[in-house]
Amino acid sequence: MLAVTSHGPQDVRVEEVDKPKLQESTDAIVRVTTTALCGTDMHIYHGKIPNVPAGWIVGHEFCGVIEDIGDSITEFEIGDRVVSSMYVACGRCPACVSGDHRRCAKFQMFGMGVAFGNLPGGQAEYVRVPLADMTLRGIPDGLSDESTIFTGDILATAFTALRQSGIVEGDTIAIVGAGPVGQLIAMCAPIFGAGQTYVIDVVPERLEEAARLGAIPINPKEQNPRKLIKDQTAGLMCDAVFEAAGNVPAMETAFSLPRANGSVVLVGMLVDEPFPLSAGDLWLRNTRVIPILGAPFSHRDELLKLIASGRIDATALITDRLPLSAASAAYAAFDRKELQKAVFQVGEAG
Amino acid sequence: MLAVTSHGPQDVRVEEVDKPKLQESTDAIVRVTTTALCGTDMHIYHGKIPNVPAGWIVGHEFCGVIEDIGDSITEFEIGDRVVSSMYVACGRCPACVSGDHRRCAKFQMFGMGVAFGNLPGGQAEYVRVPLADMTLRGIPDGLSDESTIFTGDILATAFTALRQSGIVEGDTIAIVGAGPVGQLIAMCAPIFGAGQTYVIDVVPERLEEAARLGAIPINPKEQNPRKLIKDQTAGLMCDAVFEAAGNVPAMETAFSLPRANGSVVLVGMLVDEPFPLSAGDLWLRNTRVIPILGAPFSHRDELLKLIASGRIDATALITDRLPLSAASAAYAAFDRKELQKAVFQVGEAG
Amino acid sequence: MLAVTSHGPQDVRVEEVDKPKLQESTDAIVRVTTTALCGTDMHIYHGKIPNVPAGWIVGHEFCGVIEDIGDSITEFEIGDRVVSSMYVACGRCPACVSGDHRRCAKFQMFGMGVAFGNLPGGQAEYVRVPLADMTLRGIPDGLSDESTIFTGDILATAFTALRQSGIVEGDTIAIVGAGPVGQLIAMCAPIFGAGQTYVIDVVPERLEEAARLGAIPINPKEQNPRKLIKDQTAGLMCDAVFEAAGNVPAMETAFSLPRANGSVVLVGMLVDEPFPLSAGDLWLRNTRVIPILGAPFSHRDELLKLIASGRIDATALITDRLPLSAASAAYAAFDRKELQKAVFQVGEAG
Amino acid sequence: MLAVTSHGPQDVRVEEVDKPKLQESTDAIVRVTTTALCGTDMHIYHGKIPNVPAGWIVGHEFCGVIEDIGDSITEFEIGDRVVSSMYVACGRCPACVSGDHRRCAKFQMFGMGVAFGNLPGGQAEYVRVPLADMTLRGIPDGLSDESTIFTGDILATAFTALRQSGIVEGDTIAIVGAGPVGQLIAMCAPIFGAGQTYVIDVVPERLEEAARLGAIPINPKEQNPRKLIKDQTAGLMCDAVFEAAGNVPAMETAFSLPRANGSVVLVGMLVDEPFPLSAGDLWLRNTRVIPILGAPFSHRDELLKLIASGRIDATALITDRLPLSAASAAYAAFDRKELQKAVFQVGEAG
Repeated sequence: MLAVTSHGPQDVRVEEVDKPKLQESTDAIVRVTTTALCGTDMHIYHGKIPNVPAGWIVGHEFCGVIEDIGDSITEFEIGDRVVSSMYVACGRCPACVSGDHRRCAKFQMFGMGVAFGNLPGGQAEYVRVPLADMTLRGIPDGLSDESTIFTGDILATAFTALRQSGIVEGDTIAIVGAGPVGQLIAMCAPIFGAGQTYVIDVVPERLEEAARLGAIPINPKEQNPRKLIKDQTAGLMCDAVFEAAGNVPAMETAFSLPRANGSVVLVGMLVDEPFPLSAGDLWLRNTRVIPILGAPFSHRDELLKLIASGRIDATALITDRLPLSAASAAYAAFDRKELQKAVFQVGEAG
Repeated sequence: MLAVTSHGPQDVRVEEVDKPKLQESTDAIVRVTTTALCGTDMHIYHGKIPNVPAGWIVGHEFCGVIEDIGDSITEFEIGDRVVSSMYVACGRCPACVSGDHRRCAKFQMFGMGVAFGNLPGGQAEYVRVPLADMTLRGIPDGLSDESTIFTGDILATAFTALRQSGIVEGDTIAIVGAGPVGQLIAMCAPIFGAGQTYVIDVVPERLEEAARLGAIPINPKEQNPRKLIKDQTAGLMCDAVFEAAGNVPAMETAFSLPRANGSVVLVGMLVDEPFPLSAGDLWLRNTRVIPILGAPFSHRDELLKLIASGRIDATALITDRLPLSAASAAYAAFDRKELQKAVFQVGEAG
Repeated sequence: MLAVTSHGPQDVRVEEVDKPKLQESTDAIVRVTTTALCGTDMHIYHGKIPNVPAGWIVGHEFCGVIEDIGDSITEFEIGDRVVSSMYVACGRCPACVSGDHRRCAKFQMFGMGVAFGNLPGGQAEYVRVPLADMTLRGIPDGLSDESTIFTGDILATAFTALRQSGIVEGDTIAIVGAGPVGQLIAMCAPIFGAGQTYVIDVVPERLEEAARLGAIPINPKEQNPRKLIKDQTAGLMCDAVFEAAGNVPAMETAFSLPRANGSVVLVGMLVDEPFPLSAGDLWLRNTRVIPILGAPFSHRDELLKLIASGRIDATALITDRLPLSAASAAYAAFDRKELQKAVFQVGEAG
Repeated sequence: MLAVTSHGPQDVRVEEVDKPKLQESTDAIVRVTTTALCGTDMHIYHGKIPNVPAGWIVGHEFCGVIEDIGDSITEFEIGDRVVSSMYVACGRCPACVSGDHRRCAKFQMFGMGVAFGNLPGGQAEYVRVPLADMTLRGIPDGLSDESTIFTGDILATAFTALRQSGIVEGDTIAIVGAGPVGQLIAMCAPIFGAGQTYVIDVVPERLEEAARLGAIPINPKEQNPRKLIKDQTAGLMCDAVFEAAGNVPAMETAFSLPRANGSVVLVGMLVDEPFPLSAGDLWLRNTRVIPILGAPFSHRDELLKLIASGRIDATALITDRLPLSAASAAYAAFDRKELQKAVFQVGEAG
């Protein structure tokens, strides 16, 4: 079958590899119909993820059709349309039952190499899905791949960020960084009762999209975010701020925006960036800091209901629809920020 | 001054009475600009509220302008535009600090007679407001009386019902009874993350309004609510149901709709109606029952922010705008259900 | 093997039956070492549970040692000491992930007949445990069967009742009915921050035990519970009341005790009892009603930690330790209320 | 009257000053009976608080008897025994109603100089208490000054820390720094359901007291806290860690102890200390950081109930009982860490 494979920094190829087979009775084999290119994939592309062998199949956002199932599978039948979580967990251990599936001993993330659980990814024609009764969800009738694919990763991340932020109805929030996750936070903020949402970015197209979602766009090249928000909120500032860019300048902006006793949610992946203020300043401002990892198992069922009822539509996020064979060029274009969110159309969903 | 007064069942008059004066240093006198007619007022009209003397000034929903203030008032100045809570509480006792302002020893409700605290009402040209720093809120610049008046009563009641229901993002809800409070629950449900909202009523205009708000209307004369919701939710039924009619048939419908381990929120006022099912049935279905009293002190600040940001607009609820002199006829028309929500335009807000 | 079987009302026998075998790859066979007699078992004894075939193996509280495991079991090995949940659920469907395992499509309760999932019970020398990775928990080193056995049922029920009641630190509670579950609520109340706990029962020994647990005992034959609590709380009454007897007089007492805007938690099983007050009274008092089903999957991991740290010790509840062969007599004695909580010592745990 | 006054670094005097008078109708004058010396007072003693005039009356923990009341006071009469919050807030503004009294525009802290609201302190024979209906609480009959005095500050701080930490029943916690606040966190942890509590300090007496409270003491001079807790929790580590020392080494220890997706609560006051790890490390460990300011208004009513029911007794914390005239020596001794928690016995409570 065809798959997108990593061969080291800046070297992603589309090549013929062996089709996966069932290994455990709890596995399913999924024929992939749609798979997406995620910002996290770029960490492999940039060589920042250790222990990714040459020829490793990448990708962790995908929809497809059940091709084969192990003997223990009870939730699915061959031919069912499904969407996957970006990672695997058992649902039964104390960590999973407490809602913290990332601490499950069976945690494996798709397509991120040996260190993340040694599980080949979903940018391929077929993918093996462990613990499929838990890892997969059926796509409700009438919903497309594109409308549901993000429930396994970035839409769940946006939801996790909002839930963990502790905002209540009417609260004022700001989002620093309006890439795909930042946009989805802006899109979902009304569902969590946000009153006013500010979106801060330097890319005009992103700010236009934010405005379309009902947020107030701020371009820090043109306006001082702290000053503007202070004026518009009569000095009350933001109840919660979402750092969705993953870099130091964005953190510095983010920490300038909450009210006393407010929150900064760190959504963007950070690796070795310094903390942007002293512990003393943090204490005196009484700002709580909430690093976030997406929790698809906790939120995808809620999300599928909101998508089915028409309250969330994330398909507008998709800027490019490409064949799998275009993956190598797509990675390079994404790295140059020439595309925002690409999906690969791999096979027929019908 | 002119005021709307009760003289027993079916006898509401507009007559000249003494203008109120400051009594305590924490009082304010408010010149009323807009006041509303509420379903609760009809309990006096029907003679169901004990201890309402002849000539009693009624009404508990009002906006106005500060005419005079006691020496201890710090939040307001003469000339400020304000909206009132429907009742008074101190904000400082253990009950108030816990968020349960109805148990405050200083509780007084406007316009409901001696038993509710002996505080004359707001359907008048002027009204005395005790503990004004707590009871009143300033109307933000740019907002009208009509957009904010319901924060003191029915909009806060809708919010209280949704908050107490315990729903989470994506949940399915049903509202039985689409009068003003039912409509406001439907309007606010998306702010609490409701996925799908069903509204059940027999009045076609109310169902049209519910549909306009994004809900699915059900006329029980035409469709069986339980059967329809069962079909559309694949048997999952409702996570929470709001009984907003205050009568036995509505309760019976309401209790037929929740899932196992779901909730029925009793929003409509009940006085002596029997409980519609046995304790055994309640236990076996595991339905929690949540009677609700509106909590404006807990929610009006959130609501004012949501109104200012454009996320809530309850003015569409208003069907009739009348002079205070029309109050007697308006009570009679409301009693005949010929009007849905009337406001009396008493004076200039500007 | 020996097992306790039901043969109709008042007819429980200990007889030789076939030893169970693995049926699914997710099953385990447990050699039972300790199993308990629960009030719920009496519903079968009284013929109130439909569809219990003659010869049905009863019992749903048990500890034991893993005798055999299916191929998919990953959490246990033969020889491990385990304690079981009273029922089975998958951990992976939307209901389970939301924490509401009772609505799982794979729900089966041990020992309650065909209608409860057709799963033979644990009052036997061996028992087949479906979905064993979820249904069972390992008993931590150093803990006995008796200290952990109630995590699968009544201790989890007490925890569920307290969690769902919504009490906060310092709250005053009352427990009506001081049988095993009532005692465990009194025992666990401090863990949920209860300030003062009242326990109401007519049996002197139960009241003595409640006093030993730090509660204030009330014998309604000697004192009026409402009057006493009103006096001692300066009229504030109870924040939450737990009805743990499952009958109408206990419900009547329970509903007389909460403050306005308080809760009554219905813990005792109810079948066809009438509701003890009108909907109008419920609304005017603003009492929320919370029927409870025990949620061992949500609480047993917390409970095992509290038991291991010495903060909970439920072994004092056990009044009788008997061989399995004494089961028939034990059921009769329990029915005559001559014993409070019996465990059957079936085999060696070591 | 006599009062403890600050005259610059290391210069605290007991001198004769004017007795305070009522200024507002909402004031009370309290004759102080007991007042305590708090670690926060040492910030003035060390000259770290700006804008503290010479002769400033210090102290913010006190109990006493109502000596005089303004015309608007409704909750108290002359002669009532009362305990004060360490600061003043109105209870009526949006910040107060939301439970965040520190953001009240009327915030004033007793005895901390001009920058903290210009309100003279309570280490004196008399003190003026603004907004007395809110700032004070009556001491329940039968309770002593010493048993209630800490509800206005450090006991509320311990409660705030535990509440904000988000721990659930059974969780494992660690407290770094076993001064008065650390001890109170250990004392209150069971009320929040903590399973196992570790207390880390180098002072043997503090560790003995922690052990007496049921915690596991760790002396980092003798044992590596991280290694020990890792061993004892089978690698699960702590769900929440409380930094109660307010210095960098304690922060470093604290951040080494939480599990992935756990919390570090910063309880100790920090001024200009650096943050002890990078933003990248924080994100990768997914540790949430929660700086805490004590919230007496939110917790003192709960605390008074728990004290009255015997569940909390903080009097054991008091190591020294002194006359007010000994204040100068007491500050010096406290600075040398020769006393842990001193109260000044100023007058008769009876």
